[in-house]
Amino acid sequence: MRKFLLILKYHGADFVGWQVQKNGLSVQQCLQDALETMLGHRPDVTGCSRTDSGVHAEGYCAVFCSDTDKECKRISLGLNAILPDSVSVWDCVEVDPEFHPRYDAKAKEYVYRLYDGMSPDPFLRGLAWHYKGFLDTDKMQKAADRLVGRHDFRSFMAQGSKIVDTTREIYWCRVTRRDRLIEIHVCGDGFLYNMVRIIVGTLIFVSRGRLAVEDMPRVLSALDRSAAGQTAPAEGLYLHKVYYKTPGKEEMP
Amino acid sequence: MRKFLLILKYHGADFVGWQVQKNGLSVQQCLQDALETMLGHRPDVTGCSRTDSGVHAEGYCAVFCSDTDKECKRISLGLNAILPDSVSVWDCVEVDPEFHPRYDAKAKEYVYRLYDGMSPDPFLRGLAWHYKGFLDTDKMQKAADRLVGRHDFRSFMAQGSKIVDTTREIYWCRVTRRDRLIEIHVCGDGFLYNMVRIIVGTLIFVSRGRLAVEDMPRVLSALDRSAAGQTAPAEGLYLHKVYYKTPGKEEMP
Repeated sequence: MRKFLLILKYHGADFVGWQVQKNGLSVQQCLQDALETMLGHRPDVTGCSRTDSGVHAEGYCAVFCSDTDKECKRISLGLNAILPDSVSVWDCVEVDPEFHPRYDAKAKEYVYRLYDGMSPDPFLRGLAWHYKGFLDTDKMQKAADRLVGRHDFRSFMAQGSKIVDTTREIYWCRVTRRDRLIEIHVCGDGFLYNMVRIIVGTLIFVSRGRLAVEDMPRVLSALDRSAAGQTAPAEGLYLHKVYYKTPGKEEMP
Repeated sequence: MRKFLLILKYHGADFVGWQVQKNGLSVQQCLQDALETMLGHRPDVTGCSRTDSGVHAEGYCAVFCSDTDKECKRISLGLNAILPDSVSVWDCVEVDPEFHPRYDAKAKEYVYRLYDGMSPDPFLRGLAWHYKGFLDTDKMQKAADRLVGRHDFRSFMAQGSKIVDTTREIYWCRVTRRDRLIEIHVCGDGFLYNMVRIIVGTLIFVSRGRLAVEDMPRVLSALDRSAAGQTAPAEGLYLHKVYYKTPGKEEMP
């Protein structure tokens, strides 16, 4: 049996998320259907994480096993010929049979895209959230810096989530701007439910003056969702990259 | 009577083009409808050029007259609240009553966006043309350089077009790449029907070796559509910017 790793891009608007669900089309199901068409058998597909409905991915990692003798390049081409426009196989590599896309992940990087100003941009529809106003990215970066490190992020977890250990480490959180487009890259060892979207909403509260940069330690230590800002909409969020330990190299990141 | 210049962005896929037509929704009609809702009267809207069905604009210029006492900023906000997601007023300024968006234009700049490689990109769907293969942008730039200047561009005009004077001046034609995304900016004093799309198709022929860089003078002098390359699809084409003479400044570009 061979094991293949697929790097996927998908547009979240067309799916109920990664995982197979009863209430709509998931990326996982879509991929299994395409694999079945191409291979003649229906392999299980294991992903690196769940993504919520509407969330995009530009570096999603998923594996499947098959005894096919096809080359990786032919698998990519074949799947892309079958898959809808909203999902694309960006790369396919053969991996060790022991490799697991979730358990072997050392870090994940998300990016949140938004743009400010009063005019909506028809070319960013569904690809970035439009914040109607002006954002102070310098201030947002200063607040973001206070979140880096190992903390209990309970204040940044959606209410109703049942996770017990809410400590996570954030390796970096970078706010960059090019004209009106703002990107917030967050890399960490793991993320709680809605954590990145709540971080983004909190940085926006800081820009608007509803929270101060100096309030960030207090927001963290409150361990209470209501201390943080609003949850930014799903349409701006992308799973950007998953980092794996490369044998013989220093651990990532 | 006051005269207002609107700078518009629109996503071409949703329209039959700029100009009012019987077979579908045009940007002009969409804008007139919105102005009528906002102002209570239906002003004529004059645009800087026709754009074809499916072609995008990120700096379209259109004017209308009204005796409204609204500030420009309120006009932008008001229109953006009424217009569909596919059209946006990027700016609104009051102009001289003599100003004409077509006759006073000194140059127009288009950009054609495409990307190469074998995998389709779900985030560029409808925003850039996917060329399934690899393009040699250095070679394309060399061929593009041969088109700069004043030439008879009959070979780069869609068949059936009835224009008599087919001489135009191209001020620049720049091919740039960022990862897989390629942009071809073309600025000139005017463009024949499908001219930019045929230029792009011809540069692709050069990359593929179906034409050589040295063939470009021959393609021009043939004065025959069949000497040039194919017409690239509309979805990659954007009217990028219209240049007007600024009083007191050197003529643009």
